[in-house]
Amino acid sequence: MKHLDVQNRRIENGFRLTRVGITGVRKPVVVQRNGRANHLTALIDVFVDLPSSQKGSHMSRNVEIITEMIDEGVRKDVRSLEDLAGSICKELLERHEYASYAEVRMMADYFLERSTASGWSTLEPFKLMARATARRGNGLMKLVGVEVAGMTACPCAMETVTHMVQEESPGLLDARKAPMISHNQRNITTLMIEVPEHVEVEADDLISIVEGSLSSPTYGILKREDEARVVLDAHRNPKFVEDVVRDILGKLLQKYSGLPDSVCVTVRSESEESIHKHNAFAERDTTLGELRAVEDR
Amino acid sequence: MKHLDVQNRRIENGFRLTRVGITGVRKPVVVQRNGRANHLTALIDVFVDLPSSQKGSHMSRNVEIITEMIDEGVRKDVRSLEDLAGSICKELLERHEYASYAEVRMMADYFLERSTASGWSTLEPFKLMARATARRGNGLMKLVGVEVAGMTACPCAMETVTHMVQEESPGLLDARKAPMISHNQRNITTLMIEVPEHVEVEADDLISIVEGSLSSPTYGILKREDEARVVLDAHRNPKFVEDVVRDILGKLLQKYSGLPDSVCVTVRSESEESIHKHNAFAERDTTLGELRAVEDR
Amino acid sequence: MKHLDVQNRRIENGFRLTRVGITGVRKPVVVQRNGRANHLTALIDVFVDLPSSQKGSHMSRNVEIITEMIDEGVRKDVRSLEDLAGSICKELLERHEYASYAEVRMMADYFLERSTASGWSTLEPFKLMARATARRGNGLMKLVGVEVAGMTACPCAMETVTHMVQEESPGLLDARKAPMISHNQRNITTLMIEVPEHVEVEADDLISIVEGSLSSPTYGILKREDEARVVLDAHRNPKFVEDVVRDILGKLLQKYSGLPDSVCVTVRSESEESIHKHNAFAERDTTLGELRAVEDR
Amino acid sequence: MKHLDVQNRRIENGFRLTRVGITGVRKPVVVQRNGRANHLTALIDVFVDLPSSQKGSHMSRNVEIITEMIDEGVRKDVRSLEDLAGSICKELLERHEYASYAEVRMMADYFLERSTASGWSTLEPFKLMARATARRGNGLMKLVGVEVAGMTACPCAMETVTHMVQEESPGLLDARKAPMISHNQRNITTLMIEVPEHVEVEADDLISIVEGSLSSPTYGILKREDEARVVLDAHRNPKFVEDVVRDILGKLLQKYSGLPDSVCVTVRSESEESIHKHNAFAERDTTLGELRAVEDR
Repeated sequence: MKHLDVQNRRIENGFRLTRVGITGVRKPVVVQRNGRANHLTALIDVFVDLPSSQKGSHMSRNVEIITEMIDEGVRKDVRSLEDLAGSICKELLERHEYASYAEVRMMADYFLERSTASGWSTLEPFKLMARATARRGNGLMKLVGVEVAGMTACPCAMETVTHMVQEESPGLLDARKAPMISHNQRNITTLMIEVPEHVEVEADDLISIVEGSLSSPTYGILKREDEARVVLDAHRNPKFVEDVVRDILGKLLQKYSGLPDSVCVTVRSESEESIHKHNAFAERDTTLGELRAVEDR
Repeated sequence: MKHLDVQNRRIENGFRLTRVGITGVRKPVVVQRNGRANHLTALIDVFVDLPSSQKGSHMSRNVEIITEMIDEGVRKDVRSLEDLAGSICKELLERHEYASYAEVRMMADYFLERSTASGWSTLEPFKLMARATARRGNGLMKLVGVEVAGMTACPCAMETVTHMVQEESPGLLDARKAPMISHNQRNITTLMIEVPEHVEVEADDLISIVEGSLSSPTYGILKREDEARVVLDAHRNPKFVEDVVRDILGKLLQKYSGLPDSVCVTVRSESEESIHKHNAFAERDTTLGELRAVEDR
Repeated sequence: MKHLDVQNRRIENGFRLTRVGITGVRKPVVVQRNGRANHLTALIDVFVDLPSSQKGSHMSRNVEIITEMIDEGVRKDVRSLEDLAGSICKELLERHEYASYAEVRMMADYFLERSTASGWSTLEPFKLMARATARRGNGLMKLVGVEVAGMTACPCAMETVTHMVQEESPGLLDARKAPMISHNQRNITTLMIEVPEHVEVEADDLISIVEGSLSSPTYGILKREDEARVVLDAHRNPKFVEDVVRDILGKLLQKYSGLPDSVCVTVRSESEESIHKHNAFAERDTTLGELRAVEDR
Repeated sequence: MKHLDVQNRRIENGFRLTRVGITGVRKPVVVQRNGRANHLTALIDVFVDLPSSQKGSHMSRNVEIITEMIDEGVRKDVRSLEDLAGSICKELLERHEYASYAEVRMMADYFLERSTASGWSTLEPFKLMARATARRGNGLMKLVGVEVAGMTACPCAMETVTHMVQEESPGLLDARKAPMISHNQRNITTLMIEVPEHVEVEADDLISIVEGSLSSPTYGILKREDEARVVLDAHRNPKFVEDVVRDILGKLLQKYSGLPDSVCVTVRSESEESIHKHNAFAERDTTLGELRAVEDR
């Protein structure tokens, strides 16, 4: 039925398309890392561009590539979601001979072992995000991203409450020393870094950077004293979403001092405010170069 | 094309169906209440049952009824989402002559004016839920439901933290008087009551009952002192999700002492724990009669 | 800090609670089946009831059990999500000595190998649902459920369109033989069966029953001829959502003739209508006994 | 409590933030248009940037502005969601004196009257999207966007099926004239145009352009003959997602010939494939200038 290749027909007065492909493909993916196999359920989107003169993109080639690559993943020890995205991206340009651009996006739940203060071990859930983009003739760019749920306690409410308590009941507490109450809440923070193909950025490192920038990480298991410890830690380390984003930016500069200025960075922190029905949000879209500039970073 | 009524055909060896209908219908609805018009965007599902001998249900009649009733709503001063659901329910039985059961479900965002401690006025969002069910020959039952977002502060962590602070720094605070820190978070509580057609239950009252049973209601606008006030109030009124559900049950008994024992009540409270990535949840499914029984309620 | 067991305190004038627990716990689960390890990412809710005289439920015990059981799962060859839910359920009653009821719910993406007409192999995504409930002193009940996406083509529009084409252009087609056009769409069908602990129901069988009751199953990879085959098959097998539910009920009676009358069955089919912005829906909630009754099933 | 303005504190070694604000604010909005009041329930996000030397953004000012503007909206006959977004955007720069950038995003369900072929009137749901952005000292840019659900029938499967039927049963149908079967499905298409403040683009026009570029629009009410008409129309007008996007681009060029080359346009079309569990997707991100260039558009 070769003559029925409707997609391949020439058209006139067409327009180029930026992305044509498939979205919402669900596949089990195995990532081999440090001798440990991570079994992920990935949600995948893949796209190529389409020239103005061609009627359609061959969508079924996209699924063929995903299927082959993900089997290949099992055999070939894929190291990361972003490496897998990169391999699919290259193959997209191979098989869509008319395309000059390819893009792959992936997302998956991911788990890491954590320990509480008193030594309980708990497997904590995170989200991995990966993206690979390639322009024919140029190298591949890959994005490594993580989403981390944690906790923020508000520094502003803490001061106002202390002031209010002191006015109402002078001498009740020593505000310089006593940890003071505030509103605190679940916070969702996203960190994404885009680097050239052969530069390695570990998603696990990004997760650690985010966890270390919140008022406190959170844990599935918290026995009574561990719970009190997390609450105290968070209140001794109150943070606006602005603080969370800035602390992450500072840590990125230290951790990735060897990466080029052109590396793109996106950080977003959203606190599901306990005192409001809406969320507080802060974001920085930038490059390592901008962050390194002393005068206005 | 009457002969093309495929739905109406007789079949053999069929099975009765409990619910056949349409889901996800979106319509603007106007509810007239206390002289004020509430313009709601409702999400609507409607169903009838289907006897074992008939091939299909006439789905388009459902949409016709919704369309007529919602226009009628504009003209006839519909009092509430549940009254509208009830009217649609009756009409479903009229036009699906083969049906013995009809059910209508609705959900909509809803807004009420609230005031903060210092007098700021703020329009707060809630969710209304409504359901009407009718069995041919029997009366109509209607369900009035609300979803309210508010705040809970944990009573257990508060005691453990106080204890831990006193052990670490004896004399730092007077724990009998000083409000102490805890984790707090956004809480989503749902309250639903099912009553016979002519019994009136005001959704606004249900919202007030839920707001009064949380550690604190929450507000869109909170200037600095109002924010401190909400935080202090919540910590002076710490609540497990268990407490929230029980306090609502107690208030329902007082408020609805005139309603019959057979009235069904569902209360669910879910706290989006700031110290965990999962939620805490409590629920009671019951009747007013069970709640009124002294020995085991 | 045993004296700080706030949950354990006695209260007066309390109310029993139907379900108290945690929701939205995410865990990697390994299910061993027919010599193959299925790595699932499960979303888990667990609950126990709470007597009227006790202030709170010990939420952290729930997480401890999940953690231990899921590690145990790796070691002990858990056979299915519902068996795992059952084990957690029993342990909940062990450790919440005050509880008389326990309930566990799980959901996970799941994959099965399928072949297209021309022999392509494709890994298709489904959803598994599991629930276990136990009342102290009574046995365990477990629910096995699946969600399957497939395709329905409308039988009514097909006849009306044929009629319309024949009126407009008599003789254009031989309507008794030519497959005729209709609207078709993605359909999501859910099948759930609840059985006593030691009765085995295979989720894979339930998936096959649903796939065989749609106008056609759907596939990730469809080369040109396979795509035409699926489209033709679906149009030669047009189905209302009512038909899908009834065909599943009929197949359940055949497949599970050995199961007791008391077994509960829920079937729901929802077509995301291509000609409407809303969905068509059919449901039957019943028992095998009711389905077996000849006079009114 | 002015001295407690924690947000206003000077910090060292800070970083600029691109967006700081609140997300998920829900408000009822009234838009006056052609003498008709549209009551919308809007979901709103607002942001300003933050200089590197300032600790925090004053989040509560954002809510104050929204509240005032939306009340003002009632009084002042706001013409559109994007005009309201623009007004809020300007006020954000007024009250956040340290900000150089402001951004407002809104989304709401929206309804328009439509007629079926046989004259039934039906209120169809769409989504409105609006965005306004302002850089201090520069003018305002506003984005007008719509999301439309409709129907696509696949041109490729149609040809393959015809070929297959002719091979199996030669002479069964006159393929040059008979409409032939294919898979068809719900399609969600988004069209967004960004223009300077004083340029008017009507959301209703954008909705019409999208509806006219699908295989067929869809309707809530479809009596039997109208349903057949929609199905026939769609199959006589089969469309890939690529075709949908290109047809919209062509219509935009005609409709907006008077708008400057710099105007940004985004078109996305996603078909919820009835034969797959994943979606087909096409997108063009461009400017009117690029679309107008003859050689490579």
